Amino acid sequence: MSNSHDSEREEGLSFQPKFDASGLVTCVATDAATGDVLMVAHMNDEALRKTVASGEAWYFSRSRNALWRKGESSGHTQRVVEMRMDCDQDAVWIRVEQVGAACHTGRRSCFYRKVDCKGGMVSLSFVDAARLFDPNAVYRK
Amino acid sequence: MSNSHDSEREEGLSFQPKFDASGLVTCVATDAATGDVLMVAHMNDEALRKTVASGEAWYFSRSRNALWRKGESSGHTQRVVEMRMDCDQDAVWIRVEQVGAACHTGRRSCFYRKVDCKGGMVSLSFVDAARLFDPNAVYRK
Repeated sequence: MSNSHDSEREEGLSFQPKFDASGLVTCVATDAATGDVLMVAHMNDEALRKTVASGEAWYFSRSRNALWRKGESSGHTQRVVEMRMDCDQDAVWIRVEQVGAACHTGRRSCFYRKVDCKGGMVSLSFVDAARLFDPNAVYRK
Repeated sequence: MSNSHDSEREEGLSFQPKFDASGLVTCVATDAATGDVLMVAHMNDEALRKTVASGEAWYFSRSRNALWRKGESSGHTQRVVEMRMDCDQDAVWIRVEQVGAACHTGRRSCFYRKVDCKGGMVSLSFVDAARLFDPNAVYRK
């Protein structure tokens, strides 16, 4: 099931991020104060290293194919309190102090809808969905 | 930047998971009691629907190419307290009651190492890394 390389990656103390075919790892950002998941995004090697070096969250946007400092347009930055790697080092968890809102829709978290199942029908309902900013004003769409 | 389909997916209340080219969404499981991230994994359409219907976490293993009920080998199941979708519906957050350990290495969470940066060198250190079970005994490698 595992070989010595996998074992070193899982049990060792060297930083060996396991990038996917697109050169990315998955990053989960949670609110250091509440534990809420704020967003799920991706980091390439450069985003990961800039995040570690600066203590601020950097990501890689798959849709824009570009490195991106969180909050560079909106001012809603993320200060990293702690960064952790998962067992196989293909996912990163950062606990952050979020300035304002993490979501591009203006909400604190991207996870502003919960999944309900009633009578076999699956649907969503809003929860914690108040907007902290107007995305049209901030991003000048 | 967005069209009406994206807008419906972001602002509507219909459940429209946005699967990637492999038919998967990313799922983050957090401990409902502590807010700690337990694991990051993937769900296909069937795993998502079984999770919603049963209230227990099901995933799709990319390495084994198989649907998988969390805890089916180890007994360490996850009861879903709440499920949320993110803005573009390509990521799911489940808050769970974890029986025992989430990680196949025997730890409570897959995120048992934190990233340190000292003098420009990036390395890992163990944190919350006690094993709750012996993986060799549980999985009979």
